[in-house]
Amino acid sequence: MALIVHKYGGTSMGSTERIRSVARRVAKWARAGHQMVVVPSAMSGETNRLLGLAKELTPAKPGGDYYRELDMLAATGEQASSALLAIALQAEGLDAVSYAGWQVPVKTNSAYTKARIESIDDQRVRADLATGRVVIITGFQGVDDEGYITTLGRGGSDTSAVAVAAALKADECLIFTDVDGVYTTDPRVVPEARRLGTVSFEEMLEMASMGSKVLQIRSVEFAGKYRVPLRVLSSFTPWDIDIAEEAQSGTLITFEEDEHMEHAVVSGIAFNRDEAKISVLGVPDKPGIAYQILGAVADANVEVDVIIQNISKDGKTDFSFTVNRGDYARTMELLKDKVLPGLGAQEVVGDTKICKVSIVGIGMRSHVGIASKMFRALSEEGINIQMISTSEIKTSVVIDEKYMELAVRTLHKAFELDQPAA
Amino acid sequence: MALIVHKYGGTSMGSTERIRSVARRVAKWARAGHQMVVVPSAMSGETNRLLGLAKELTPAKPGGDYYRELDMLAATGEQASSALLAIALQAEGLDAVSYAGWQVPVKTNSAYTKARIESIDDQRVRADLATGRVVIITGFQGVDDEGYITTLGRGGSDTSAVAVAAALKADECLIFTDVDGVYTTDPRVVPEARRLGTVSFEEMLEMASMGSKVLQIRSVEFAGKYRVPLRVLSSFTPWDIDIAEEAQSGTLITFEEDEHMEHAVVSGIAFNRDEAKISVLGVPDKPGIAYQILGAVADANVEVDVIIQNISKDGKTDFSFTVNRGDYARTMELLKDKVLPGLGAQEVVGDTKICKVSIVGIGMRSHVGIASKMFRALSEEGINIQMISTSEIKTSVVIDEKYMELAVRTLHKAFELDQPAA
Repeated sequence: MALIVHKYGGTSMGSTERIRSVARRVAKWARAGHQMVVVPSAMSGETNRLLGLAKELTPAKPGGDYYRELDMLAATGEQASSALLAIALQAEGLDAVSYAGWQVPVKTNSAYTKARIESIDDQRVRADLATGRVVIITGFQGVDDEGYITTLGRGGSDTSAVAVAAALKADECLIFTDVDGVYTTDPRVVPEARRLGTVSFEEMLEMASMGSKVLQIRSVEFAGKYRVPLRVLSSFTPWDIDIAEEAQSGTLITFEEDEHMEHAVVSGIAFNRDEAKISVLGVPDKPGIAYQILGAVADANVEVDVIIQNISKDGKTDFSFTVNRGDYARTMELLKDKVLPGLGAQEVVGDTKICKVSIVGIGMRSHVGIASKMFRALSEEGINIQMISTSEIKTSVVIDEKYMELAVRTLHKAFELDQPAA
Repeated sequence: MALIVHKYGGTSMGSTERIRSVARRVAKWARAGHQMVVVPSAMSGETNRLLGLAKELTPAKPGGDYYRELDMLAATGEQASSALLAIALQAEGLDAVSYAGWQVPVKTNSAYTKARIESIDDQRVRADLATGRVVIITGFQGVDDEGYITTLGRGGSDTSAVAVAAALKADECLIFTDVDGVYTTDPRVVPEARRLGTVSFEEMLEMASMGSKVLQIRSVEFAGKYRVPLRVLSSFTPWDIDIAEEAQSGTLITFEEDEHMEHAVVSGIAFNRDEAKISVLGVPDKPGIAYQILGAVADANVEVDVIIQNISKDGKTDFSFTVNRGDYARTMELLKDKVLPGLGAQEVVGDTKICKVSIVGIGMRSHVGIASKMFRALSEEGINIQMISTSEIKTSVVIDEKYMELAVRTLHKAFELDQPAA
């Protein structure tokens, strides 16, 4: 008998028919003798519906209290879906109870709409589990010290599930979603993309941060911090699939590098086209330049991803970085109006037609020549690299957006990701 | 400066446009210097939508836990509308906060779906009011001793508002609704029906129990118990109507009989056709008969309204009562199968084509001949009276359903309710 946490996303909870299917799947696990905790998202579309209503009423200048009320509003979506799941489980003959974040309680800080979990009290849940009850805990939400409802931000239900699993020291946390696992790359771009049986926590983190929609990045961080065994699998298999088979399906995110690990050097190709490139040209090369430029950008709440400073020539250097495309226009404006005048730089240029492609692999730590293999493969296809950024287990390049699919396919093949792991 | 509670029903909260109008009305009162507490219902249709989803999943044999989850589900409607109203008030430039029942807390017993309020903590609300904040408290819901969410049953938001007003010792509780007050009778039946400027608590109670939809009966009981000055008025006037005029509009439910009272003997004509009549004929007239019949009916959770036992003839009597029409079939069955055999009665007959018409008036206490005036007026129209039931301030008759409108019009005219009160 194990203590298992299931998490179901909005699509899995999208209708009463889907909720019934979730209930049957959970009932199957409960009847197999497991202690079950379930963390559901709101029914798909519900959070958007609620926030759409709020938008129609939003103050011209929203203050902090606005976000507190937004959380009060948005949290109702998960409360409703959780109660519906409890009812569906009762219809399957199980004893089931649903708890909102404040009832557990799931304590968070007061950063409304993007709160962070601080603690989870396991007492009430453990008492229920001991009596054989299935416990449903609303995803996405918690309560702060003042007793106000908070939410964790988009995709926060993943984080809730992992945090609950950590607090209960669950044997495994199963994230049921509309894909059947983590792939070497997006199968829509590379049909030969292969599902990974296991992926390391660090690799998952790099892939999640690259915009892979499988798991919210904070949930992966949380899983890493508390070493929660995490499995991503499909909720679209028939609910009565054999439980032993289901328990081995999907992708397991693992923390034990030496065991159960596939031995590929590169595990996956991540990519996104959500970024834009900005270069400040002819900057006098003296201390404090990076801070003068990026400090102003950070003050405007713009997040910067890749940062490159080229070597100096004639006492001048070029400084480039990428930002989210949505922040491009105002960042350009900010630099031209506020930063350039005091900087003595030549000009600011930008490009929104770029993309970032990365190879990710924990094996890169112990293998040399991986990056150069990447650059060669791209050069053989005539793809020009505009920026390069490396970390211990990732090498990213910024290239012209139009080459994105070609680059991903090329790298997927070059690193033999279409072949089963050794 | 006064402490005022406003309550807005589902229709008043039915769209973001309507919510904006509510916010502007509340803002007008707040700017006039009043301390404001607002109790909103869910947006119209929302509670039905949620319960409709639950119905699709309802267990074949719902247990007590089912009703607990139903409350968890239904309570989200008011939480969402309350947060939306807070946002709309912020957009009007006011400081506003919304609280769910558990946040106040509004403590109730654990009778899920029909819980009763036990206490309301006023500390948090008072602290907010002292800083000039508008406080929104979700209607319809509370929290029990175990920390589970409860709801008060249909129309429970009226009760919430009155209970909040009682706890805060509010100067007045204004129930904004889609009618502009309490009428001498339903204007759809009698176009000459007149809005009452004031109505006594006891009269309101009798009218509410007769199915008048203006106020939930429990809210009137609550107002009576704690002597909360209650006003029913329209939310469909322009929000920027003069506040002094608005404060005097609608109908005030009053507890001071001698002041501010209109002097009519009969204040209103109430009626309903929700009932059915059942008669047990030829019952041996001996002690315990009423209990044998009505005890069995009560055990089946059927509520009985009018009860008549005729005088005995030849040692036999006839025993009649009315029940809700929805309970008619099973009550008839119950009596025939379970009660009649042990009773030695002749037979059970019933009639669903009846209605109940009542005259209500606190003046009936001190005036004689009111009932006989009622009977004469009906007889002059050839309307046969099947049952009569009287209380201190009400006389009800059960008549053939087809005469209902005629009876109401006749009585309205006979007691000169179309004339302004003296």
